[in-house]
Amino acid sequence: MKTDAPIPKVPLARRAARLSADVPAAEPHDLISFGSGHGCPAVFPDLTEAAKSALNAFRPETLQYGPTFGLPEMREWVARHVCENGARNIRPENVLVVNGAKNGLGLIGRLLLDEGDSVVVTAPTYFTLLPIFRTFGVSFVEVSQDDQGIVVAELEKTLARIRDAGKPLPKLIYNVPDYHNPSGVTMSLERRKGLVRTADAFGLYVVEDSPYRKVRFEGEQLPIVKAFDDRGTVLVLGTVSKLVAPGMRVGWIVAAEDLIARLAQLKADLGTSPLAQRIILEFVTRGDQFSRHTKNVQDTYRNHRDTMVAALRRELPEVRFTVPHGGYYLWLTLPPHVDAERLAARAFEEKVGIIPGSKFYAGKGPKGQGAPTNNVRLSYSHAEPEEIEEGIRRLARAFRSMA
Amino acid sequence: MKTDAPIPKVPLARRAARLSADVPAAEPHDLISFGSGHGCPAVFPDLTEAAKSALNAFRPETLQYGPTFGLPEMREWVARHVCENGARNIRPENVLVVNGAKNGLGLIGRLLLDEGDSVVVTAPTYFTLLPIFRTFGVSFVEVSQDDQGIVVAELEKTLARIRDAGKPLPKLIYNVPDYHNPSGVTMSLERRKGLVRTADAFGLYVVEDSPYRKVRFEGEQLPIVKAFDDRGTVLVLGTVSKLVAPGMRVGWIVAAEDLIARLAQLKADLGTSPLAQRIILEFVTRGDQFSRHTKNVQDTYRNHRDTMVAALRRELPEVRFTVPHGGYYLWLTLPPHVDAERLAARAFEEKVGIIPGSKFYAGKGPKGQGAPTNNVRLSYSHAEPEEIEEGIRRLARAFRSMA
Repeated sequence: MKTDAPIPKVPLARRAARLSADVPAAEPHDLISFGSGHGCPAVFPDLTEAAKSALNAFRPETLQYGPTFGLPEMREWVARHVCENGARNIRPENVLVVNGAKNGLGLIGRLLLDEGDSVVVTAPTYFTLLPIFRTFGVSFVEVSQDDQGIVVAELEKTLARIRDAGKPLPKLIYNVPDYHNPSGVTMSLERRKGLVRTADAFGLYVVEDSPYRKVRFEGEQLPIVKAFDDRGTVLVLGTVSKLVAPGMRVGWIVAAEDLIARLAQLKADLGTSPLAQRIILEFVTRGDQFSRHTKNVQDTYRNHRDTMVAALRRELPEVRFTVPHGGYYLWLTLPPHVDAERLAARAFEEKVGIIPGSKFYAGKGPKGQGAPTNNVRLSYSHAEPEEIEEGIRRLARAFRSMA
Repeated sequence: MKTDAPIPKVPLARRAARLSADVPAAEPHDLISFGSGHGCPAVFPDLTEAAKSALNAFRPETLQYGPTFGLPEMREWVARHVCENGARNIRPENVLVVNGAKNGLGLIGRLLLDEGDSVVVTAPTYFTLLPIFRTFGVSFVEVSQDDQGIVVAELEKTLARIRDAGKPLPKLIYNVPDYHNPSGVTMSLERRKGLVRTADAFGLYVVEDSPYRKVRFEGEQLPIVKAFDDRGTVLVLGTVSKLVAPGMRVGWIVAAEDLIARLAQLKADLGTSPLAQRIILEFVTRGDQFSRHTKNVQDTYRNHRDTMVAALRRELPEVRFTVPHGGYYLWLTLPPHVDAERLAARAFEEKVGIIPGSKFYAGKGPKGQGAPTNNVRLSYSHAEPEEIEEGIRRLARAFRSMA
């Protein structure tokens, strides 16, 4: 397409004019990537039989337009799954099947966010959330996180200060309670209860995004945050991406029925693929393959984590981190004088991809003192154990070259 | 979930507050549906082998997160397909793969539309477009359509009047040039050229939505509207839904690269399913199965159309219509005294689903005289020939009962 000719003169929408017109460069192929939350190909299941059944016995369903809200059995399965995790009174009518949890995040943004609104996030927070919500023209209110999760007392004080100043309250609190991305922290029981109590007191929604919950290596499994919600305050986001396969693009939102009805109208894409849903249903409900698969995923990523932890202790004893009990990520604290962005640039030259912690901050941090400059998120999900060992050696080389 | 407890107090976004909180009722099972644009299950292809290959040889690709813009081969296939239909200089970089064309429509809305903007549509127009664009808070400018397609001279006059009144011009012109939904009309060559010329003159975008193009029964195939575009004025929407299977949820937008870059950021769902894309690629590129399938689709729907046309001429000679050369729909004109909404209600009692023409008007029609009350859209795609015969008999019964 010619680009030198004059382009149409009508302006883009305000939200789109804020976006970059550039296409990001692809990663080089010889990079060992600790950057992304991609799955390890070795644990992707064999879905051939599930697909064969979905494409034959279920052909009139799977190749047709599907129901807007999702296949009835998929909604039932999700409702049951959420109840098994501690929530009460969740029925299939509370479920909207979406094209992965990120599609759900965008829909929740369209449901709740107008230009000028604000959103509470932890510091640090899931960094892909930030550009998605920024397209709605919102600002962020950052609240600290410690090893028990989001600091509810600070959240309460922050909200009270906003209210007492006569300013509009944030619309929602976004949080990843299980094996937080990027910090790996799991919220304590008390904090889960306190989060809902505080949200109720101020009349905010809570978005509970929990893609890693079943990627659990050890330790007790606490009820989901939604378990403490009697008033439809909590919207749950779920996905099969981190446990089965990202390529399916099947996720869900669990919320009050009137919100689900509106979210479905905003989705407006004639439903998530019934083929993808049926393949998942065939896989998770036939025999014991799903429980065997779940165990395999847990064993594999536990081994990845252990390999990375051991390699870090051996190669980079200067670096501190808390060992997560599940999920995909290690959150490193470098010595205070080491700048993580510079380390990431050096690591890239050594052909290992890492993400500096500053990218996970919505703004200047909860106290407004600027985001810390000495954190790094490492993902151990994608790379094989040997690549993890080699990648950490490369990272150590990059680190030493900065001294 | 309890619904009697107080709900959170923060207001929904303005766009969501405009939506209904109710869930629409499902259609009864014994209804013969001429209402929807669903495909006929008998022509859904056997994708078992394509899926087997996609899930095995391509597993690390198909079960992983896919590229944001779509699989490179899918983008190449789309670019080639658009060029084969007359467009020039379209490269894979001009393609964004989306979750069906409707997902693309929503994204184009987010790219171009702010509250208070307006959009040009034909009268009548594709009715699912209306709620999607209404979530953006826009109004519609209606332009007449005749048997050559959108009346470009009227479009020009309308735009000139808006400009001369010092009002903001519409952002885009939405049109279905091939086998229009609901009217079945195909735009003439002159109108295609004129549409682009007019859009260029006023600096508007054109959205060319052409899902039915290959569902062609007879007659010449004209170049797509994009073929006459040198300045990136035309955004093309495509899909595999009407030719292969709606359940795949694979569609595309073709546009200038800077717009594609922004649309991808607005999509923000980590890409359309690579599994669905690979299944489609395996199906359309291996051997001659895709050309055989295309012929089968054309033969099947031609037969459906012929069956419905013959049944209408036999059972309802009072009704007028132009026989479409492709697509899924017949657009009926009832005698002027017959109210289509009342007929639809009566037909529903006779267990046949039809959609009154008034639903396909964005407002009061191009002349502001109110939408005609005596049109009906019949879809012949979904029902089998015997059901079509029976459905038209039921419709005739409903019609006679109103006399």
